[in-house]
Amino acid sequence: MQSINIGLLGFGTIGTGVVRLVQKNAKIIEQRLGCKVNLVKIADLDIVRDRGVSLAEGMLTTDANEVVSHPDIHVVVELIGGYEPARSLVLKAIQNGKHVVTANKALLAVHGQEILQAAEKHRVEVLFEAAVGGGIPIISAIKENLCGNNFHSVFGIFNGTCNYILTRMTEDGEDFSSVLKEAQAKGYAEADPTFDVEGIDTAHKLALLISLCFGTRVDFSKVYTEGISQLSLVDIEFARQMGYKIKLLAIGKEEGGQIEARVHPTMIPDDYPLAQVDGVLNAVRLVGDFVGPVTLQGAGAGMDATASAVMGDVMSLGRNILQGIKTRSPVMGYCPASIQDLPIKSMDDIVGPYYLRFAVMDRPGVLAQIAGILGAHDISIASMIQPDRQEGLSVPVVLVTHDAREGNIKKALDEIDALEVIREKSHLIRIEGSLD
Amino acid sequence: MQSINIGLLGFGTIGTGVVRLVQKNAKIIEQRLGCKVNLVKIADLDIVRDRGVSLAEGMLTTDANEVVSHPDIHVVVELIGGYEPARSLVLKAIQNGKHVVTANKALLAVHGQEILQAAEKHRVEVLFEAAVGGGIPIISAIKENLCGNNFHSVFGIFNGTCNYILTRMTEDGEDFSSVLKEAQAKGYAEADPTFDVEGIDTAHKLALLISLCFGTRVDFSKVYTEGISQLSLVDIEFARQMGYKIKLLAIGKEEGGQIEARVHPTMIPDDYPLAQVDGVLNAVRLVGDFVGPVTLQGAGAGMDATASAVMGDVMSLGRNILQGIKTRSPVMGYCPASIQDLPIKSMDDIVGPYYLRFAVMDRPGVLAQIAGILGAHDISIASMIQPDRQEGLSVPVVLVTHDAREGNIKKALDEIDALEVIREKSHLIRIEGSLD
Repeated sequence: MQSINIGLLGFGTIGTGVVRLVQKNAKIIEQRLGCKVNLVKIADLDIVRDRGVSLAEGMLTTDANEVVSHPDIHVVVELIGGYEPARSLVLKAIQNGKHVVTANKALLAVHGQEILQAAEKHRVEVLFEAAVGGGIPIISAIKENLCGNNFHSVFGIFNGTCNYILTRMTEDGEDFSSVLKEAQAKGYAEADPTFDVEGIDTAHKLALLISLCFGTRVDFSKVYTEGISQLSLVDIEFARQMGYKIKLLAIGKEEGGQIEARVHPTMIPDDYPLAQVDGVLNAVRLVGDFVGPVTLQGAGAGMDATASAVMGDVMSLGRNILQGIKTRSPVMGYCPASIQDLPIKSMDDIVGPYYLRFAVMDRPGVLAQIAGILGAHDISIASMIQPDRQEGLSVPVVLVTHDAREGNIKKALDEIDALEVIREKSHLIRIEGSLD
Repeated sequence: MQSINIGLLGFGTIGTGVVRLVQKNAKIIEQRLGCKVNLVKIADLDIVRDRGVSLAEGMLTTDANEVVSHPDIHVVVELIGGYEPARSLVLKAIQNGKHVVTANKALLAVHGQEILQAAEKHRVEVLFEAAVGGGIPIISAIKENLCGNNFHSVFGIFNGTCNYILTRMTEDGEDFSSVLKEAQAKGYAEADPTFDVEGIDTAHKLALLISLCFGTRVDFSKVYTEGISQLSLVDIEFARQMGYKIKLLAIGKEEGGQIEARVHPTMIPDDYPLAQVDGVLNAVRLVGDFVGPVTLQGAGAGMDATASAVMGDVMSLGRNILQGIKTRSPVMGYCPASIQDLPIKSMDDIVGPYYLRFAVMDRPGVLAQIAGILGAHDISIASMIQPDRQEGLSVPVVLVTHDAREGNIKKALDEIDALEVIREKSHLIRIEGSLD
């Protein structure tokens, strides 16, 4: 009987997970697929370290070409991460007629067009379920069963490090830097956490989902990206008092041929499904015109969950190979000729409610001055908290606006920050009042 | 260019939804699939009623044979529901080499084997995403992206009528029969609500998911099924006091080659994801050995959400047809030769914590008698509530046990109910303390 032969590029945590899955679940894979999935070759710079799995002799190599050019390999699984050498190796595998499964969101978000075109030219598929939301079958859901829908919007919590830090800040009242240190000690955060805490990893994932949902190419540099490192405990606490939680949310919307693509700390009502996704969990909320909102939640990272997503992709390609077909679904969910270049809305044109916090000198008439400037920019106030005076010279004033244009908000803040009574740069947090 | 041609059996609510989707989203369907989905013929007994959609002349027929035998139709969509004539028509479509998409859980749960064998023989696929959880892509998730996992368990809220009634009982303190009447008036419950409120609909869906997750045939008559019609407000209130919600849960587990298959009112901790699924929403929690727990939530019924699931299946078959292949995935997720007949555990052998409520005469020594009988049957008590005496002759005593065998619980209850101090038959509600 035929087998589906795979080769691995990268033998780190996820690679080890894939090996474990192929070995431990060999029987069920064969029962479901109708043939074995066979591990043929694994390339990594380090082929000495013990990963706790046993492999046939000669399976490990330091030469990645042995994987991408191996005549028996049907599917190359790229788990190196980053841009290079992942990009060159994926392209070489495609040129050699290999299907590719990858968990590499950075590569796809930045070099996706090049890879897509190569895959089209050489008639292979590139699957990447593991690139977004770990084991949660988000990409399959969009490309496969929900594909009859026009999607309105997609919202997601896609970075376990950020979500863990925000959960700890919210529940335990600890500030960003001390929770980050603790997360690094526990292995939940990298030594250099920039990609995670500054929202870049989340933005990579959002760019992919926007392409899949709305059928458009996304210039990654145009995705608005703001992380959580500047977030103050005091804003988390005010948010809580007003019935909100703060999450690092990926937000994609399509309306009238324009796209919203933004990642930033976001206040959402605390009884919303995504508000209850805590710790290292990930979740996505997809809103389609027929299905309505669908929420998917699970482990967003980790050796085993990611291996599950990789194996799902391998088995999907395996079903094609067993039927003798090369490609079945377009890589980005839309036929290449249908993919558009929809413009991304400027942040100035975003409309929604805003949370604003000012540090003011406690003096009569201050609120009137602030409200006057907001009103002059067409911004009306929905609610206000001015807690008791705290020690020091300034007191906080917290406002939530009705729907306002972000461009107006910024102009108003510039004017307000120039007032003599304002003691520090004002703070803004965007609110999503409805995740539909 | 080729088109994918479909015919509909049944032009009720869901049929109308499918027509609306095919018409409204024609462009996006073509952009994603690479060709049009063409509605060729619709059969229904009533071809006169206005459904608010416009159709080409001659598309409607009262003769279902015109659909199942139409030479141009690739995919027959069965939306009649129930056993007959749905069964005969689906079998005839299969014999004619048509692929089938159906939303009919009752048909598949009871006549699944016959349909499966016919599909295998005639090399067609039968897809049924719409049969469980409306628009939520549960079946696709199990069959496709999560298929590298050995599943441990599946938990679900699959009946919007029951969940609506339970939510209203919990939130508004109204009793079962008055909420049912209101739900019937609003169209959330059928005139004859038996299939819904007695758990039969949920059990149909569970039987399908157990087959898909664990690779076993399920004798539907062996799925333990208990509805919500006997549930008392007082138990919902005691559950709340102890930090639980009561849901009509579908529970499927596999351990050591034995299956648990049961539908009954279940107490779950109120901070669990499924406890927060309220109203007509549906949700499933799938637990795989690699992916861990994954929760999917969305609209479980309704014209549009169900049409979304149907169209996802049609487009999946369309991708196969465009590639010139007949079948790609086995109907029940496992190759037919691998499907087992795993035994279903007797309810007596279920082990878990139990909620027990006794109506006792308020007399010294009563609790000692009850505790003595429980202890003699190897049942230990985790917590106890004995609220203040109420009017009347009897007072409630509420106990939560540690893990106990249900056979022992039943024997103990029989003995306890025979005591002179017990004033009515004792009440039992099963608790799921962990949904993993």
